[in-house]
Amino acid sequence: MRTRPLKVALLGCGVVGSEVARIMTTHADDLAARIGAPVELAGVAVRRPSKVREGIDPELITTDATALVKRGDIDVVIEVIGGVEPARTLITTAFEHGASVVSANKALLAQDGAALHAAAQEHGRDLYYEAAVAGAIPLIRPLRESLAGDKVNRVLGIVNGTTNFILDKMDTSGAGYSEALDEATALGYAEADPTADVEGFDAAAKAAILAGIAFHTRVRLDDVYREGMTEVTAADFASAKRMGCTIKLLAICERAADGGSVTARVHPAMIPLSHPLASVRGAYNAVFVESEAAGQLMFYGPGAGGSPTASAVLGDLVAVCRNRLNDATGPGDSAYTQLPVSPMGDVVTRYHISLDVADKPGVLAQVATVFAEHGVSIDTVRQQGRDVHSGTEGASAEGGGRREGGEASLVVVTHRAPDAALSGTVEALRQLDTVRGVASIMRVEGE
Amino acid sequence: MRTRPLKVALLGCGVVGSEVARIMTTHADDLAARIGAPVELAGVAVRRPSKVREGIDPELITTDATALVKRGDIDVVIEVIGGVEPARTLITTAFEHGASVVSANKALLAQDGAALHAAAQEHGRDLYYEAAVAGAIPLIRPLRESLAGDKVNRVLGIVNGTTNFILDKMDTSGAGYSEALDEATALGYAEADPTADVEGFDAAAKAAILAGIAFHTRVRLDDVYREGMTEVTAADFASAKRMGCTIKLLAICERAADGGSVTARVHPAMIPLSHPLASVRGAYNAVFVESEAAGQLMFYGPGAGGSPTASAVLGDLVAVCRNRLNDATGPGDSAYTQLPVSPMGDVVTRYHISLDVADKPGVLAQVATVFAEHGVSIDTVRQQGRDVHSGTEGASAEGGGRREGGEASLVVVTHRAPDAALSGTVEALRQLDTVRGVASIMRVEGE
Repeated sequence: MRTRPLKVALLGCGVVGSEVARIMTTHADDLAARIGAPVELAGVAVRRPSKVREGIDPELITTDATALVKRGDIDVVIEVIGGVEPARTLITTAFEHGASVVSANKALLAQDGAALHAAAQEHGRDLYYEAAVAGAIPLIRPLRESLAGDKVNRVLGIVNGTTNFILDKMDTSGAGYSEALDEATALGYAEADPTADVEGFDAAAKAAILAGIAFHTRVRLDDVYREGMTEVTAADFASAKRMGCTIKLLAICERAADGGSVTARVHPAMIPLSHPLASVRGAYNAVFVESEAAGQLMFYGPGAGGSPTASAVLGDLVAVCRNRLNDATGPGDSAYTQLPVSPMGDVVTRYHISLDVADKPGVLAQVATVFAEHGVSIDTVRQQGRDVHSGTEGASAEGGGRREGGEASLVVVTHRAPDAALSGTVEALRQLDTVRGVASIMRVEGE
Repeated sequence: MRTRPLKVALLGCGVVGSEVARIMTTHADDLAARIGAPVELAGVAVRRPSKVREGIDPELITTDATALVKRGDIDVVIEVIGGVEPARTLITTAFEHGASVVSANKALLAQDGAALHAAAQEHGRDLYYEAAVAGAIPLIRPLRESLAGDKVNRVLGIVNGTTNFILDKMDTSGAGYSEALDEATALGYAEADPTADVEGFDAAAKAAILAGIAFHTRVRLDDVYREGMTEVTAADFASAKRMGCTIKLLAICERAADGGSVTARVHPAMIPLSHPLASVRGAYNAVFVESEAAGQLMFYGPGAGGSPTASAVLGDLVAVCRNRLNDATGPGDSAYTQLPVSPMGDVVTRYHISLDVADKPGVLAQVATVFAEHGVSIDTVRQQGRDVHSGTEGASAEGGGRREGGEASLVVVTHRAPDAALSGTVEALRQLDTVRGVASIMRVEGE
């Protein structure tokens, strides 16, 4: 084994960074054995140098991250600051000064992955980022390396633990969104400002990264269609249950049937209870991968948290250090297919639509006509009479058991159709006099 | 991209080999883009050269595998023959003649992994074998690379599709073992001679490989404790259901609590229905990994079959070819911890024991005394009176509702204890006059 240590600079020492530093110290012998040389923490860049950081030599602490990455003797920079700047500039500077980089920065990778990969390649260095997607779950490496001889057609995953915790809570307890969010916040699963999670921005960044790697093409954050999950209601869960489904916030990356384009999207969707993703509980993540030869694979585990994310960072650190010793680089960017990213309208999926309609004869015929005119085939219709005066609800055949001026609820589940045709259908339904309102629209996936 | 192709020799052209050859041909452009150079099938060694092999140039077919690996211009040898010889000699010869090797051979790797790794290292070549364990499921690479910065404490998996199919069938249909085996055979899930699967030899080889990689130590097939699943009965499933469990054939690799040794074993066990492994259906495989920092991860997918296994082989082929181009090697053998493998008696686990006992006062006290004498703590006891004359069964408090000369059934579930203490307890129970028989013993895992 080489005795001269590889030098590591750590940028950021929060929940993840402090755990990385701790494991580097407590498991130094194991890491050395696996790498073939010792690794030494050569500097830790932080914003608040006065904070006591147990187990870290105060001499290593600096507020000047730029000077640290410019030192010239750093072999690997670990970036766990997050956000686009200053992370982007620091990573680029690190490459320029001969370091390889391990990052957990999904937002940056989703926005500027191509430029960062180019910088790494220009300087003959590695850029690894297993921790950027689904925390500890090995996903980037399996997609990039294990499935390198296969053709991935679909990636379908729960990649945000906060929203999965909230949706799981709504599912199991019948709670509404706000109540479930409050509990997630109280338990530390949601941040004080939960926007990035509940509006799907976090999941969208991960979808962009996964789609790019899975399909060997360029997918940026802006290419990802995004809907949050703040409007999912207890009534939606009741509808889902009636269909033998539950509701998850899914990141879905697909190759089009003709192979000529890809799509990436994040939105809440109903999935059958029999689907492996349906039983992913609490803040866990899971990603389902469908490929031509391997078939259906699933990867499951904790998607966030200091320790799990540190595990992923350190796995990358070992690989990058081994590459340094071998004077080699691992698999870098792969965007050779240059497949275009199609807009959401081209996605082929199914809809579950709840309509409040006038409870009188002919309504179903009108509604069915609108679907037919938009080329959307109906799978099932369920009709429920609802007396607006008493608020009671009961099954009613069209034109039977209703009361003048009453409302009925019509639930339509479609066959697969382009999303544009489906949204056109909904738009037209809203124009019908007999349709009082569109109570909910949700896509149905995983069948 | 380099234009001179890397040359690949394929040893074996059965279900897996023919699929490897097919994908190499149909996806040649993708493979070239991912590797950075084209790959060329330079020879295919088979036993029956007269067999028509669609899509393979007959000029490439040879029966002389030794001459093929000795050619000197082969960059990578893919070995999908299986069995120990001639595969072992061919792989060693391949290294001697400058080739790297991708193998799917679990039996060989479990028996001679150390020697083969040493040969690879001696000649500066790679030995990859993702396909040897759990087919298409990325498992070797995640354990070896993604978790390289973490400490794995436990690997618990369903790694044999045939036995999972049989047990799943018994669970869902109430069928007995023979009936379920017949169905597995008819559907092609079980071979004409199912011994390797149902007696746990196949799973034991995989457990040896997984334990070695997970704990960075040497674990050979002979170190793995093994019990088959041919004696699992419908009654066992009924007992499992009463406990909220099902029965799976598990491969379990564990680091001892004191960290000073490891164990590896294969046997049927009850696991709670709430455990992610409980819902693995049909011939699917799944492996649960517990590590210090990452926590609980699960990997799920098809564990066998031509296409899935070929996917794993080709992923390795891409990695090995990239290493050849970089003039580097990937992570090789890692056995630096040199942890001893403890015998089964040292494993700490729980037992579910069904006893046929005389239905008279004092039996429970006698039985409980035997457990106490062996230091095994009882978790729960369930007692059921059984009138041997009528065959009816019903709950009976000890000493109440029974008939002179009748039998009762006593089900004991223990707390965790060393396996040696548990088997000592069972041995002593057999000696009791009041114990007419030990109907079943099964370990309880995954809690």
